[in-house]
Amino acid sequence: PGVPRARGCAGSREVVPTCERYAVRRLPFARLADGDVAFFERLMPGRVIAGEEEVKPFNVDWLRSVRGCSQLVLKPQTKAEVSQILRYCHERNLAVNPQGGNTGLVGGSVPVFDEIILSTALMNQIISFDKVSGILVCQAGCVLERLSEYLEEQGFIMPLDLGAKGSCHIGGNVATNAGGLRLLRYGSLRGTVLGLEVVLADGSALDCLTSLRKDNTGYDLKQLFIGSEGTLGVITAVSILCPQKPKAVNVAFLGCQSFAKVLETFTTCRAMLGEILSAYEFMDEKCMELVETHLKLSSPVADSPFYVLIETSGSNSTHDEEKLNNFLERAMASGLVTDGTVATDEKKIKASHLRERITEALTHEGYVYKYDISLPVGKLYDLVTDMRARLGHSAKNVVGYGHLGDGNLHLNITAESYSHSLLDAIEPFVYEWTARCSGSISAEHGLGFKKRHFIHYSKPREAVLLMQQFKAMLDPKGILNPYKTLPSAP
Amino acid sequence: PGVPRARGCAGSREVVPTCERYAVRRLPFARLADGDVAFFERLMPGRVIAGEEEVKPFNVDWLRSVRGCSQLVLKPQTKAEVSQILRYCHERNLAVNPQGGNTGLVGGSVPVFDEIILSTALMNQIISFDKVSGILVCQAGCVLERLSEYLEEQGFIMPLDLGAKGSCHIGGNVATNAGGLRLLRYGSLRGTVLGLEVVLADGSALDCLTSLRKDNTGYDLKQLFIGSEGTLGVITAVSILCPQKPKAVNVAFLGCQSFAKVLETFTTCRAMLGEILSAYEFMDEKCMELVETHLKLSSPVADSPFYVLIETSGSNSTHDEEKLNNFLERAMASGLVTDGTVATDEKKIKASHLRERITEALTHEGYVYKYDISLPVGKLYDLVTDMRARLGHSAKNVVGYGHLGDGNLHLNITAESYSHSLLDAIEPFVYEWTARCSGSISAEHGLGFKKRHFIHYSKPREAVLLMQQFKAMLDPKGILNPYKTLPSAP
Repeated sequence: PGVPRARGCAGSREVVPTCERYAVRRLPFARLADGDVAFFERLMPGRVIAGEEEVKPFNVDWLRSVRGCSQLVLKPQTKAEVSQILRYCHERNLAVNPQGGNTGLVGGSVPVFDEIILSTALMNQIISFDKVSGILVCQAGCVLERLSEYLEEQGFIMPLDLGAKGSCHIGGNVATNAGGLRLLRYGSLRGTVLGLEVVLADGSALDCLTSLRKDNTGYDLKQLFIGSEGTLGVITAVSILCPQKPKAVNVAFLGCQSFAKVLETFTTCRAMLGEILSAYEFMDEKCMELVETHLKLSSPVADSPFYVLIETSGSNSTHDEEKLNNFLERAMASGLVTDGTVATDEKKIKASHLRERITEALTHEGYVYKYDISLPVGKLYDLVTDMRARLGHSAKNVVGYGHLGDGNLHLNITAESYSHSLLDAIEPFVYEWTARCSGSISAEHGLGFKKRHFIHYSKPREAVLLMQQFKAMLDPKGILNPYKTLPSAP
Repeated sequence: PGVPRARGCAGSREVVPTCERYAVRRLPFARLADGDVAFFERLMPGRVIAGEEEVKPFNVDWLRSVRGCSQLVLKPQTKAEVSQILRYCHERNLAVNPQGGNTGLVGGSVPVFDEIILSTALMNQIISFDKVSGILVCQAGCVLERLSEYLEEQGFIMPLDLGAKGSCHIGGNVATNAGGLRLLRYGSLRGTVLGLEVVLADGSALDCLTSLRKDNTGYDLKQLFIGSEGTLGVITAVSILCPQKPKAVNVAFLGCQSFAKVLETFTTCRAMLGEILSAYEFMDEKCMELVETHLKLSSPVADSPFYVLIETSGSNSTHDEEKLNNFLERAMASGLVTDGTVATDEKKIKASHLRERITEALTHEGYVYKYDISLPVGKLYDLVTDMRARLGHSAKNVVGYGHLGDGNLHLNITAESYSHSLLDAIEPFVYEWTARCSGSISAEHGLGFKKRHFIHYSKPREAVLLMQQFKAMLDPKGILNPYKTLPSAP
């Protein structure tokens, strides 16, 4: 006998359940029965969460924008347990929602209906680290920040860094092909992830967990799982190449009078800083206002229409500072930059990480419509200007910031609360605008639940069909993270 | 009426046809008929090569180690033509061998039987280059060196460089996931290739030719074609991220007394040179002997058991030279290095590229058994020592060199001519040795024809089965580069 779907949602008023807000129909998966819970409790006693209140935080995303109605959270510790869970769910036709740190921004990490939540939280062991090669092997549930701390003690760093590092899991980072602040320097996870251990939908394990920098023996299967948002398999362990910890890190925070100057400053700094440039981030004055208002942080430079954060990471502090100073001198003298400050010691660097806290400041505004767009850098800010003009007073704020060095704009629109009509004014306008410039409607956040129907703005029909074929091949019953990433098959 | 298979092979004695040397059976593809040739001649007049002598060079690999019996070479200029060719071949069940610069080392780029050769030689147009983002878009048949020259004029470089650059095509580089000399610094093609245009086995085109640094909209389909050696689709165009041309390039050539010292020198130099280290290559004294004997080049340093080539690429020559000199001083003072020389101007740097010409020197020895192995760096040279001891006088030379920074050993064994018994002494010993150390039996060369049956030494059964499923899905008739990469399906 099935458990009624709505039970898990009763009594929680704060976030509207996804199935009510969005026009989406539950697929004909089996419903959780008492026997299922009993099976899992035998399999992993004490690591099965079934109480309504205890399950609640796993049902709601970090932004509090989507909410599922799962009645069960499972916390496996090993690949073997994940295998057994999926084999069982596959046989029973029970849908599963893999969940890492639940820090995703597109509703990919929480259930839409009553999918069983498979949390990687207890798969948090570091398996090995090789100091000669810099290769780390760990379980998928390791928290990014914990890995960073572990590596720094050994003179290495993780090749990625992002605002959510305190909660996000490396498995989730890989499953969503997370970008973040260091991509400009260390490249994407497609290059740094060397191996993966994955459990497929039917419970079979796929061991691609090699620790080799180079391996051209057959197709690179692991790539399919990177960025697949848990729809093709559950990542249980990761092998990743970690760079040496730079001996010197410097941060410059600059004010620019126009976006054109932000761009010219980028070209100049890339040429002059070369191999030590590790981040080039920008934010507009609205972002600064929000950070000041909601988080009581203050700008280290004079008020400007645009701000730029430059980070350098190198092996020789004297050389690095000389390069940075030469660049700043040139930038100030030529009027590219009107005010600037440089921080070299770690305390100051942290204080100047205003940039990282914009996402947090935005949540204080009410409801946030988030867009994560890739565009040719020259057009990056035009979208913000156009959107601001289009929405006028119907939005509270329209702000733009992002990883300029990667051509990645974070466009955020805030309002007191969610409104269908404001959404209609934003979408599909934002996607059409992006498609006209051959941009991507999701640079690094993925498609998850919220963006999956917009994939056609960035991918041709044949590509989407092929993706659906891959999905059907690897997960014929469609139990893995349903309603996510791909539009429903025709 | 089919054309007799052996016709194309008659009269050429130098290289034994592959189908005679190896136990391989022709699959039941259709045989080329006069009507087929007529069809192609109508489709692309003047770009169909059917004469026995003219086809010959396309039938034999660069190493002169394998030889097919194709009777037809097609030279399309556009994606549309490739589409039409494959649609036709798919309908007719004619097998196709995609071929770039034919510089592969595992017999992947020439036919095994009478496959039609689809050459990318005339798809050699540069489509666009964006100086702000450094993104190059070009057709698959562009020669790597030509692209390098084009970019250098604009202040950029290709993210890969390899010995075969004068002949190899970028499409072939991508199809084989080529590594080469710059991987240590700029990462693999999995990170730098941003987009691909591919024609699938049935002639349908797949457009993933985006020029964005970041794009997380759905599965990254292009990754499947990178390194698939033409077995899943024909790459017709490539979008690739190119680094800025370094303002300063320095090369140091060093002599070391043991492999242990080569390793310690690596750790030291990685720490001291940091972000400017762009290559760390090693070769043993046997390699040097061969280069001296066959190419009349001379060593720039005193005779040593091992030689190391270090390259730095940076944005400030003063800083770079200071870093390099500090490192060399330390390395000499501590006895890691016994002799060394530094070249800073471009002419000298080219002269010291002994390392790049080892492959060429080896071909002068007679027949070469080539192995391209990934191993944990600490064990890299043990395989050479063990192999030398095992083979004794039955081999002419056993030499080791490679990309130490990437854990990549090129093990080469030479003999006057090909011998079954010598091969039996080498294989499967070399693969078993590698598998015991969790290495890869092909780091960068791929599997092609020669290594495909050894994939199990580096990939588990389930992974190979999954690869075969992908192949069956994308190329159900198996017409694309048959007999390559994967072992025959069970």
